[in-house]
Amino acid sequence: MKKRLGPSDRLYPMPCPLVVGGTAKETDVLAVAWIGIAAGTPPSVAMALRDTRHTLSLIRASGEFTVNVPSADMADLVDFCGITSGRSTDKFAATGLTLVPAAVLSTSIIAECPYNMECRVTHEIEIGHYALLVGEVVETHAEESVLDATCEKVDVGLLDPLVYIAGSREYRKLGPVVAEAFSVGRVIGEQDLTTP
Amino acid sequence: MKKRLGPSDRLYPMPCPLVVGGTAKETDVLAVAWIGIAAGTPPSVAMALRDTRHTLSLIRASGEFTVNVPSADMADLVDFCGITSGRSTDKFAATGLTLVPAAVLSTSIIAECPYNMECRVTHEIEIGHYALLVGEVVETHAEESVLDATCEKVDVGLLDPLVYIAGSREYRKLGPVVAEAFSVGRVIGEQDLTTP
Repeated sequence: MKKRLGPSDRLYPMPCPLVVGGTAKETDVLAVAWIGIAAGTPPSVAMALRDTRHTLSLIRASGEFTVNVPSADMADLVDFCGITSGRSTDKFAATGLTLVPAAVLSTSIIAECPYNMECRVTHEIEIGHYALLVGEVVETHAEESVLDATCEKVDVGLLDPLVYIAGSREYRKLGPVVAEAFSVGRVIGEQDLTTP
Repeated sequence: MKKRLGPSDRLYPMPCPLVVGGTAKETDVLAVAWIGIAAGTPPSVAMALRDTRHTLSLIRASGEFTVNVPSADMADLVDFCGITSGRSTDKFAATGLTLVPAAVLSTSIIAECPYNMECRVTHEIEIGHYALLVGEVVETHAEESVLDATCEKVDVGLLDPLVYIAGSREYRKLGPVVAEAFSVGRVIGEQDLTTP
């Protein structure tokens, strides 16, 4: 039996990257769970920021941001970046997170986050009190220690990304693999094909 | 040491809901990992669909879709819906997934998915070969068996949502809670406040 819960902004699960905006003069960071891939050609992300966020004004000024995926053991740092404002707090000084220059853009990535995406803003839509920013991903970086045997791809087990759960307001780790994608569904397809 | 991996559409982790489009005359479903929350006021989602997908044409025709979050034990059904096309396959017949009427919209939700969101399209952006659709969430539903003690909110441990990992193409389960959000970061804030 299903129960109606009303309009809601909860989707399960969510990522929880740290998003950096700004350039050498001023940089700020916040935690963004409302983010997803927006296209593959070119690779793009879409993220929603409350229109009052300080980082948003920095992103708008430069047209750039970076998405920095933290490991599960960084939950306290991520949470701090989410619940404080860069207007009154130097989040980098408080957390010890280290900015390093991005490769393609003028903004920075976070050294301690093992996976990083450099994004150039291509679209912005105003939705109520939120700005939905679309950014083209022009470069990604990964810590060598989280790459798989090919050294070209992230091993998500080594990455151990932080996961956010809305509603219950939990940070979680990833759990075990349950199936191989683009593969496990083929069994159903084959059954279908052999049905008379 | 970080390694540059080039532009990429990988973000960790991703949800993996089944998205339904269409009305009584014709309905189709596909798996969408490229989806996230797009705003809180009103609650909205943003999702990217390849412009060739059959479900996209059905969503455009009706201006509606539903997002149906599967449990981890539904990986094979989700994968099947992702790798086949509704133009040549009746995915509901092949998988046994059951459509039930939505409450607010004219489209359907999937009975077997324990959490469901009804969405009305508000924006569409063309990005390369992809359509980024923004949909206002006008209603959500949850199976009573996945609600917490308040009966008003999903217990994500009971929901056990399927998680998608790009790159390594894995489906995973959620792992354990590592920290409480809007809370664990306060310790850093307090340290900061007491620094002379």
